[in-house]
Amino acid sequence: MDISKLCEKDLTDWLRDRSQSFPSSIIQHIGDDCAVFDPPLKSNLAITTDMLLEDVHFRRHWISPYFLGRKSLLVNLSDLAAVGARPYACLLGLALPADLPPNYFHSFMKGLLEEGARWNTPLIGGDLSQSASIFVSVTTWGFFETGRPVWRSQAQDGDTLVLIGEIGLSRLGLEILRREGSSELWKIDNEASLAQWAGENFRYRCLKAHFLPQALVQVGSWLSENQVANAMIDISDGLSSDLLQIVQQSNLTAEIDLDHLPLPEGSIGEVNSLEAALNGGEDYALLFTASQKQMERLSSTFPSEFPPYRVIGHLSRGEPSVYLKRGGQRESCEAGGFDHFRS
Amino acid sequence: MDISKLCEKDLTDWLRDRSQSFPSSIIQHIGDDCAVFDPPLKSNLAITTDMLLEDVHFRRHWISPYFLGRKSLLVNLSDLAAVGARPYACLLGLALPADLPPNYFHSFMKGLLEEGARWNTPLIGGDLSQSASIFVSVTTWGFFETGRPVWRSQAQDGDTLVLIGEIGLSRLGLEILRREGSSELWKIDNEASLAQWAGENFRYRCLKAHFLPQALVQVGSWLSENQVANAMIDISDGLSSDLLQIVQQSNLTAEIDLDHLPLPEGSIGEVNSLEAALNGGEDYALLFTASQKQMERLSSTFPSEFPPYRVIGHLSRGEPSVYLKRGGQRESCEAGGFDHFRS
Repeated sequence: MDISKLCEKDLTDWLRDRSQSFPSSIIQHIGDDCAVFDPPLKSNLAITTDMLLEDVHFRRHWISPYFLGRKSLLVNLSDLAAVGARPYACLLGLALPADLPPNYFHSFMKGLLEEGARWNTPLIGGDLSQSASIFVSVTTWGFFETGRPVWRSQAQDGDTLVLIGEIGLSRLGLEILRREGSSELWKIDNEASLAQWAGENFRYRCLKAHFLPQALVQVGSWLSENQVANAMIDISDGLSSDLLQIVQQSNLTAEIDLDHLPLPEGSIGEVNSLEAALNGGEDYALLFTASQKQMERLSSTFPSEFPPYRVIGHLSRGEPSVYLKRGGQRESCEAGGFDHFRS
Repeated sequence: MDISKLCEKDLTDWLRDRSQSFPSSIIQHIGDDCAVFDPPLKSNLAITTDMLLEDVHFRRHWISPYFLGRKSLLVNLSDLAAVGARPYACLLGLALPADLPPNYFHSFMKGLLEEGARWNTPLIGGDLSQSASIFVSVTTWGFFETGRPVWRSQAQDGDTLVLIGEIGLSRLGLEILRREGSSELWKIDNEASLAQWAGENFRYRCLKAHFLPQALVQVGSWLSENQVANAMIDISDGLSSDLLQIVQQSNLTAEIDLDHLPLPEGSIGEVNSLEAALNGGEDYALLFTASQKQMERLSSTFPSEFPPYRVIGHLSRGEPSVYLKRGGQRESCEAGGFDHFRS
């Protein structure tokens, strides 16, 4: 396929030849004006859309199209995880410049479809266009098998603040790219080559967190189905910003106990581990709040195959702000307001 | 709001203050990681996504943000109409350059929300970003009240080919823009000013068809619910291309009777009315096929408030191609292959 003549029909023709696994409830997936499906009975549906734009969210030469395809779906799945939904299917809007090599489209699609297969999220429709810069828009939706949606706004006075997944690494990975990003990265489409390029394990983990974010889909739906979370959000903008969403919408005060916050084990350049953990963004860890009873249930039933959960603070009545505590000291966490604790 | 600092929260904050009318089945519309809704019981859902990109689908200075917002939803609704679905809700991905005037966002959103209100399609979520050029991605979905989806692939041997809505005008409107497009158009956000700019009624109708496409939503769902169409498509790429979709997917031959094809009553520059009608695109008319029995039911029950339907040809067994007929002559309609009939 010549990338300079992309049109929607190329996407449908190309997809028609790919083997994806569809649930029988998907009635029409490609090749018509709409995709049509029979929604899971008695379940609410959760739907979300996210864009990845060249030179805003990524640099063309610093990420392979295969990794970009995977990431495009993963960041969307994280939004489903954050309300506790199980993914069902996705749509893709993709615009590509004519000066890309012809296999760019195929590598991107390979990455997206592989992640789709991994998470039972087939691609069932989309739109394709030419453009001056790379534009990706993914819409995913999902359902609630037995659970209910978990909102940002339902945190309760006295709730414990719990984190699952790693924070800070992605921001440090970005810092590696800013300092050393080169077009060699464009060709890196497997984890072994990435590890080799990174040189040491910590740097590899930072880059991997940035390119291939964790999507804690099973964790999110487990938390919803076991009703052990009052409020939840995925950390896309950074722990401090996303926690602020919970406290503002729930009208509570949050305190993060820095002695218990899991930090990356190193820094990259000027970005230290605490700054990356608090304000980094693109972590896609899950942050949730749980009552004492929910914490008891969590500790007795939490599946051992999930990443560990960590208590990092608590919520209480008060103005909707985020505070940081270390030892006896307590400090307001404004945007960039944690200088006091910076080592 | 400063357009140079757009983020998703601006969209949610701004939307929160707008009054939209939501059906009670919408459980969460904005401000969380996903929108959540309770899908209409016993109905399949149809979902579609379309992009509008600056310098690919439109020029920034030739269309007002208000018209662009309206058009962004209308082209999506047309896809729902083409399968016979009634619209339910939509999501918006919007990326805007920092150098736009601050009210660009508000005018765009005003247009989108007004169309949403007109078609019972509230905006229930989205993503917002900065970018180098304007990028719009809308996802809409809908349901089938009593009807079933109408596919492109179900046309039958002997079916009549029926058109509802006007074709060719939008292509002529584009030609006016190509010849006379100026930044005056950026400020035109109502039909009276557009009529004044156009100068004469035919030119006004061409421009209006281009800026504010017909979305034959009620017609499409009526055709589905009354089971009077075997196959259907909306004309977005041009009559000849879209009809080719039907004949290829249904494995039939189509013949368009040029003596009965409704043509625009004039030409603009080099683009004559026949070329605009056959290959123009962006018409968003509905093209469907109906058996003799369906035609009888159509003629006795077709609502008088709808735009008239016109028989423009028929389908028969044969290789999947499109032919043009005028008087006794018959000619294959390749891409651009209708020169013979050009006056």
